[in-house]
Amino acid sequence: MEQTKIVMDQLKAFDPEISKGLQQLFFNDKQEKVQKWQKLFEDPVFYPKYDIPLDAQRQLAYDRLKKVSEAKLFSIFDFNNDPKNLLTAHEMLGYTDGSLATKFTVQFNLFGGTLMATSTDRHMPFMKKVDDLTNMGCFCFSELGYGNNAPKMETTAHYDDKTKTFTIHSPTTLSQKYWITNGACHANQAIVFAQTIVKGKNEGVNPFIVRVRDDNMKPCAGVTIEDMGFKMGLNGIDNAKLKFNQVKIPRENMLNKINDVTEAGDFVSPIPKVTQRFFKVADRLLSGRLCIAAMCLSTCKMCLCVAVKYSQQRLGVGLSGESDTPIMAYQLQQNALMPLIARTAVLNFGYNDAKDLFANPTGREFEQIKTFCVVKTMVGWHLQNAATVCRERCGGGGFTAHAQLHQGIAGAHSGMTAEGDNRVLMQKVVKDILADLQQKRHRLPAMTKCPRKGIPSQDFITDLETLTNLIYYREHAEIKNMTDILKKKIMEEGKKFFDVWMYEVSDEIQNLATAFGERIFLEGALNRLNAAKSDKLKEVLFKTIRLHCLHQLKENLGWYLMNGVINAKAAKYVDADYQQAVKALVPHINDIIEAYDYPRIAAMNAPIARDYVKFNEQPDSENVNAAGGLFDFKKGPKL
Amino acid sequence: MEQTKIVMDQLKAFDPEISKGLQQLFFNDKQEKVQKWQKLFEDPVFYPKYDIPLDAQRQLAYDRLKKVSEAKLFSIFDFNNDPKNLLTAHEMLGYTDGSLATKFTVQFNLFGGTLMATSTDRHMPFMKKVDDLTNMGCFCFSELGYGNNAPKMETTAHYDDKTKTFTIHSPTTLSQKYWITNGACHANQAIVFAQTIVKGKNEGVNPFIVRVRDDNMKPCAGVTIEDMGFKMGLNGIDNAKLKFNQVKIPRENMLNKINDVTEAGDFVSPIPKVTQRFFKVADRLLSGRLCIAAMCLSTCKMCLCVAVKYSQQRLGVGLSGESDTPIMAYQLQQNALMPLIARTAVLNFGYNDAKDLFANPTGREFEQIKTFCVVKTMVGWHLQNAATVCRERCGGGGFTAHAQLHQGIAGAHSGMTAEGDNRVLMQKVVKDILADLQQKRHRLPAMTKCPRKGIPSQDFITDLETLTNLIYYREHAEIKNMTDILKKKIMEEGKKFFDVWMYEVSDEIQNLATAFGERIFLEGALNRLNAAKSDKLKEVLFKTIRLHCLHQLKENLGWYLMNGVINAKAAKYVDADYQQAVKALVPHINDIIEAYDYPRIAAMNAPIARDYVKFNEQPDSENVNAAGGLFDFKKGPKL
Repeated sequence: MEQTKIVMDQLKAFDPEISKGLQQLFFNDKQEKVQKWQKLFEDPVFYPKYDIPLDAQRQLAYDRLKKVSEAKLFSIFDFNNDPKNLLTAHEMLGYTDGSLATKFTVQFNLFGGTLMATSTDRHMPFMKKVDDLTNMGCFCFSELGYGNNAPKMETTAHYDDKTKTFTIHSPTTLSQKYWITNGACHANQAIVFAQTIVKGKNEGVNPFIVRVRDDNMKPCAGVTIEDMGFKMGLNGIDNAKLKFNQVKIPRENMLNKINDVTEAGDFVSPIPKVTQRFFKVADRLLSGRLCIAAMCLSTCKMCLCVAVKYSQQRLGVGLSGESDTPIMAYQLQQNALMPLIARTAVLNFGYNDAKDLFANPTGREFEQIKTFCVVKTMVGWHLQNAATVCRERCGGGGFTAHAQLHQGIAGAHSGMTAEGDNRVLMQKVVKDILADLQQKRHRLPAMTKCPRKGIPSQDFITDLETLTNLIYYREHAEIKNMTDILKKKIMEEGKKFFDVWMYEVSDEIQNLATAFGERIFLEGALNRLNAAKSDKLKEVLFKTIRLHCLHQLKENLGWYLMNGVINAKAAKYVDADYQQAVKALVPHINDIIEAYDYPRIAAMNAPIARDYVKFNEQPDSENVNAAGGLFDFKKGPKL
Repeated sequence: MEQTKIVMDQLKAFDPEISKGLQQLFFNDKQEKVQKWQKLFEDPVFYPKYDIPLDAQRQLAYDRLKKVSEAKLFSIFDFNNDPKNLLTAHEMLGYTDGSLATKFTVQFNLFGGTLMATSTDRHMPFMKKVDDLTNMGCFCFSELGYGNNAPKMETTAHYDDKTKTFTIHSPTTLSQKYWITNGACHANQAIVFAQTIVKGKNEGVNPFIVRVRDDNMKPCAGVTIEDMGFKMGLNGIDNAKLKFNQVKIPRENMLNKINDVTEAGDFVSPIPKVTQRFFKVADRLLSGRLCIAAMCLSTCKMCLCVAVKYSQQRLGVGLSGESDTPIMAYQLQQNALMPLIARTAVLNFGYNDAKDLFANPTGREFEQIKTFCVVKTMVGWHLQNAATVCRERCGGGGFTAHAQLHQGIAGAHSGMTAEGDNRVLMQKVVKDILADLQQKRHRLPAMTKCPRKGIPSQDFITDLETLTNLIYYREHAEIKNMTDILKKKIMEEGKKFFDVWMYEVSDEIQNLATAFGERIFLEGALNRLNAAKSDKLKEVLFKTIRLHCLHQLKENLGWYLMNGVINAKAAKYVDADYQQAVKALVPHINDIIEAYDYPRIAAMNAPIARDYVKFNEQPDSENVNAAGGLFDFKKGPKL
């Protein structure tokens, strides 16, 4: 049979049973939640609008947030009752609007979540007004000068035992609270983190509730709010700089679950060391990182769905010279998109394990920081790469705003440096691994054969078991490399830790954290493969994971060869097997894409994913006006 | 001396003599032109404006284009008198505004350049009105359905020998002229490419002048213009879809330098084969690719300048725990930015050679297509990568619009798929190389030692000579690989060329084209090194090129090891030498950045590159209003 015909048949294949099975594996929560969110997104407020002024973009993001709040699909009390629901909400919002998702994460995780974690009974009336946005919050943590050195923040909260008040103050330009989401327009309340000065002594950073706007939404006395203006994307987010000029707040506004100041002005804390107090109160940044991963993962699936559906209809030149072949048939398109689809699934499974760890950390609390950080960084970078490739592979079709792919690029950039610069978080991951190694609690991945002994003699290394061993081995090797270097440079050569860490081992840090991340993602994927009940599902999972592993091996071939972990003869087969693995997954492309929870939303939001020729029959002005994108208010979405 | 102190001294180093020498190497045209453009950009119309509606963005881009036109720094007659000036203009515009640059390239290269290439004396009065925008043009070439298969376009021009007119017609949705820059707002004239039907016979595609708007800027009878709406960036460009419904134009509107239709209706052409005529008339797309490279190269230098200048002031945690160390001191920042700086220089030199080839192709005409295409693709991809890394390494500072880095990301995406999808152009490059090989005119790079024999036995491979041989060898090897595969699959296995090309050798095509591109860039760089007169300049060039080569080797280590071109022992030194090469270039960072022609513009356009603390002292609203960005109309730019 003609080659084009074979590929075109593969592109049409669809097995609803497999797709259903995958959908249940991709979404790690109660399935009925998805339908509720999808139903909500049919509200016209969620249809894309373009070319609207900054003010209107922010208002739109707020209107959407209000709709989400009214739908009562999430409550801050879910932190206690249904912790997974926090992440589920972020996944669903990541499919629709990054600005909305960001405003949501600040209101419900950073603001609401910090309240849940650090409040006491006296704050309950305040907290009951968070879900419905009566108390609309911002999270005043980062300062301009201390983005990556938050413990050194300059904002102060001085306690005065005569008036029983704290005075919140920003002494310098560098101490402005910076990038504060919800700050420029919608927040009336803030949680402000400040150095807590009691009886002349700095007791470290604590959170305080500070009202920032009055009932008329004017800034309160002493509070200066400056709009941060236009950004490279996500302009529905109203970011601000906040300065406090001797703002007095009642003692009770201190969030005092962990530390407290008594009326008489005694600082009370279960943690004696000031430096250690910091990480306890800044706790919500941690779940925040998983929230970002949730958003990025969905946005990534959105991008892949749009790119694949467009590529399946978009015709390019065929054997006859006519434009009769869908571009998804080309090896060029498959080699670009299929590995991204495979990796997205593998990251999804690792993320799902992190979601479980978030919901039930008992006995594994220490694993949270390194796991959540590496999930955040690696999903964010993957989104950046995937959205970029999807945009490029859709050509001009992907450059238009109605393709939605720009959301992926802007969302990735926001995710990569918000709530911790990814590269700095990777340093944190390695510090945690090193500390856990010392405490003998870092669990290393179990290999079925040791690469140092067995694999270099193997001439065939592309079976899944060997691939797994190779990926797992990288973590072992990078840990040994790092500990050897640190031992040599610090113990033997007497160098300062800071100097070695900041000036000599940057790449080694990133490599070790990456190796750890790749391992936990792969573990997550293999667990799904092993647990899969149907043979058909097992087969798709197997092909997906193997393609991902082959891609990893291909990307790191130099390292494996240089270190003698594999031999050159074996390496020569990798590329051909990889090419075959790409082709082998193509017949399951619809099974996977339809298993995302996005296609129903795509039908409304991304016209090029539907029928790009039909879309181009209509005057485009209809798609760019402010009235509601593709939504015809008389007839509903043009499906 | 303390490590931080050493690095901070390196970051301050500056040698004006070296910098001046580099500037003269980076800019390959008469130096006095630069000052004229920089002077022009001091006009307030060029200061960034944010949060302005789509209409206003387009008007602003037009107003800027008008200023450029009035400055008379470029004329379409420069195609004859000073061809380099075309590219120089694009380089200068790439520093300022991608929308402006794109409107410029369409008006002056695609529209004006096609006129220059295909007009005859009868068109001279029309052409004299192009420089001053009286004839404001668009280039109606691509159709929705034939983006990558333009010879099959559907628009027709039927000649009627009774009325001596052509009738221009778009028969289908897919035949709409698509992505037409200047179309939505500003063009009154178009060059329309159409299948030319004379006496019932399709004589192939020719260009015709078609008036699209009347004196009141209303679309002419039969011309439907639809606005393409909002895009992921570059929204100052007014893209449109154009449809023609039986639009009659005089016979003389055919651009008849190559082919002609006589009054009596005889088609006259020096090229007998219809298919071969196409590439002759579509000639301007080729220089257009070099124009895109020019824009992307400057935008890349803009991004690096902003990122470096910001990183030199932005303070992070230091040895003491205080935020007292510029982030540019960190190895993390250096490892991210220095290789990009080195590669930008190397690409710049290769681009400069292409600029010379454009200006003086005599005897080397056949090299133009493969060279210009590979320069366009690889500079565009490099910009995408560089802008992405710069944005990420500037954290939140890079996410604000006033950092200008978003221009790099959007500009790269536009460049990567405009005037030929980069990946498809790489296929074109390989087809050209294969054809030139058959004609024995493809010049292979000369190696001083043959890697197959000498290098695998070498344990040290990081000297520049060996690195050069390794990079050059890749082209030899990829050509052999490709010709072997094609021979085997087509000659021996009897497969169709189309099937092999589109379904089996995608990666090999990209690899070969890339190897060719890497070679011509490196040749360009080495030529500058060899010609450099001062030892100091030689040293900086040497360090720059060696870092670039080490980065290339590191990226492709797997390939070199797998194919036995280097040995594992030698490979083990690569990483350490690479790390040292990064550090070795740091003391020249100011020499290089100041050698770009951008810093003077940056002072006006990108406040975070100037003094980010001072910038944050001012209300940000000043920076986002529509009145002119950082420009204070009373006092001039706040420098």
